[in-house]
Order: sequence, then structure tokens, then C-alpha cells
Amino acid sequence: MIFSSTLLENAVNEFAKLPGIGKKTALRLALHLLKQDEEQVSVFSERVARMRREIRFCQKCHNIADQDLCNICSNTMRRKETICVVESIRDVIAIESTQQFNGVYHVLGGVISPLDGISPDQLQISSLLARIPADEVQEIIFALNPNIQGDTTIYYISRQLKETPVRITTIARGISFGGELEYADEMTLGKSIANRIPVQQYISPVS
Amino acid sequence: MIFSSTLLENAVNEFAKLPGIGKKTALRLALHLLKQDEEQVSVFSERVARMRREIRFCQKCHNIADQDLCNICSNTMRRKETICVVESIRDVIAIESTQQFNGVYHVLGGVISPLDGISPDQLQISSLLARIPADEVQEIIFALNPNIQGDTTIYYISRQLKETPVRITTIARGISFGGELEYADEMTLGKSIANRIPVQQYISPVS
Repeated sequence: MIFSSTLLENAVNEFAKLPGIGKKTALRLALHLLKQDEEQVSVFSERVARMRREIRFCQKCHNIADQDLCNICSNTMRRKETICVVESIRDVIAIESTQQFNGVYHVLGGVISPLDGISPDQLQISSLLARIPADEVQEIIFALNPNIQGDTTIYYISRQLKETPVRITTIARGISFGGELEYADEMTLGKSIANRIPVQQYISPVS
Repeated sequence: MIFSSTLLENAVNEFAKLPGIGKKTALRLALHLLKQDEEQVSVFSERVARMRREIRFCQKCHNIADQDLCNICSNTMRRKETICVVESIRDVIAIESTQQFNGVYHVLGGVISPLDGISPDQLQISSLLARIPADEVQEIIFALNPNIQGDTTIYYISRQLKETPVRITTIARGISFGGELEYADEMTLGKSIANRIPVQQYISPVS
């Protein structure tokens, strides 16, 4: 692509570095911003830069935060005795958007994956273990992606908790709402039968 | 989507304002930038803001420019006697990328479209007419999109040029390279037969 302006070319190249954005899309975004008010574009650029510059990670749960503690950990209405363990910030956002969980989180920053060279000591596991006596935690809910790495991580952490009087659960695996039995894989369908739940509980879930 | 950080939320909302970028993609872009060096992100934001702040439009052809004249108009190697008339900056970039054109451009800034309320006086038509005697222009090539609005604009401008001794041409319409006759629409196929060219010229085009 040949540009007649270095200013435009630089901006397009920056956009094209973002994941999933090719040269043509980058040009479309840059030309869109060219049509906006200068004020609006400077707000865009300032907010992006400020996010990277000022964002912090919660000292307790390693979620992103604006202060030392994230909004969730500093919220006195949330039940500190229930910790939901997730892989990444993205999962916190996904679960929060359901508005079904009133406990707190712990972001591991990944899952154990020897093939990718990720060992337990690279994850936020020791800080999770330290929170359990400190916050009198009663339940740890694992909300990790259902794959070998996720299951390995659950197994590893729950072994460390063998002596600790804490309830350990994992989010239910089963057929998605709106999904069709016919197209479900055998693993999921099998587990959903093995871990069947009373209809009474399905209709009015215990929170 | 519920965020636990206002800084992140602001950045995601800014990305989501861009065309073709939804909330989920915006989050992916923001989290990607969070993982980059602070330096890199500030370069991104600065280049985008600088593009909007400092970019100018060429006083001659209305293409984007870093100075008063764009790189193309100020290039003494380009043939000023041939003007290629296009709708937008995007078309200049597309034609430049072919490296087949050595003349100069004129960006109309749109095409005549009564339905969208765009009349001839909102386009850069008078400045085009003024360039013809000034630059001793010999040929005007219309490279507009092949639709009613494009054809109307060609018709309107060429009527204004009736008395002017200048050659008026339009880019060839025909079957795309790699296209299949079977799937071409009748209009295109019909025109490509009516405007057939000698094989000799097809093999070694006259520049």
C-alpha cells in the first residue's frame, strides 16, 4: 500500500499492529478518525495511553484495578468467603457480566501448561493459598476453561488444599443453554449425565 | 459488559466507537495493548493523535498531505498534464498501489448524489476546472465507482468541459482478472464486448 502522507502511514501501521487488524482495516479506522473532530481523536488517544500508563493490578486478586485494590475486592457488599479462581481478567469480565456471582475473584494469570513452559510457580497460586486463612475463605470455585491444562491446574491446587477445611467446587460442565444434545461431544454429554442435578435445584438454583 | 476498572472501560468504549469494532473486539484490543510496553502504547496513541492534528489537504488536488502540496503534486517526475479524477483519498491509495499511473490526481470528495443530498457545488469541481488551463492539462481520466452516482458525476463534469480542448476518458469496465464470464453480470459482460480492445494492445498496453 502506497500512502502520500507519512502521518497517515504511521497511524495505519500502528493500527495494523493490533491483533486481527490488517492493513485495509487499519486504513479504514485511520480514515474514520480523520473525519472526526480533533477533540474526539485526542480523547481517544489520551484514554488509550492513560489506560496503559495508570492501570494497576489488584494486590489481592490480581484483577485489573484503578487503585491498590480492584472495585470488586474493595466492595464491602461482596462475600469475601467465596473465591472464584479464573485464568485471566477476561474471565472476570465474563462472569461479572452474568451478575450471578457475589463473591470475589482470584486471577491466576494463566494455567499450568508444561508444553507452553508454564509451571505452577509462574502463576498466582501462593497468593491464593495465603488468602484462605487470612479471609476465612469457605469455598473455592474453579472457573477455568474445560481442557487438559485447566483440569491439571484444578488438580494441582486442590492437592495443595487437601489439609485445608475449604469447600472446593468447579463450574458445571454440561450442555449449553440453547445447545442440541445431538451435536454435543461425547465427553460433555457423558459428564452432564454423570453429574445430573435434581430438577428442583435446576428450577430454583441455590445461590 | 461489566468492567472492574474505569480506565479499561473508557479505553474499550473508545475502541468500540470505531467502525466495525464491537465491544468484544474492543476489549481484545485494549487487553492486547495492556500487555505491550508503555512506550509502544504511547507511540500508538501519539501517532494517531498527531495524524488528526497535523494532517492537511493538498491545496491542488485535495488529497491528504503533510505540507501544502501532497507528495504526488510536489513530485516533479509526475506528468501534470494527466489528471485522474477520483471520489476519495482511498481511491488514490488504491491506484497508487498499482504503480501503473504516472499522472496526478484530483479528489472530488464524493460524487453527485441527489438522494444523499450531495450536489455538484459540494464537490471539488470548480477547482478541477481551474486546474485545466493552469496546468495545461491534456487528459482527464475518470476513475469513479461504476454506479449511477459515478456516471452522473462523469456526465456532469464532462458537459462543463465541452468547450475545453481536453481528452476525457474513463477507466475500462470489464471482466476482472481471475473472474469468470459465467458469473459476470450482464451489464459488465455486455460493456466488455462493446468496448473490446485489440489483442495487441491487451498484451502490451500503451502507457
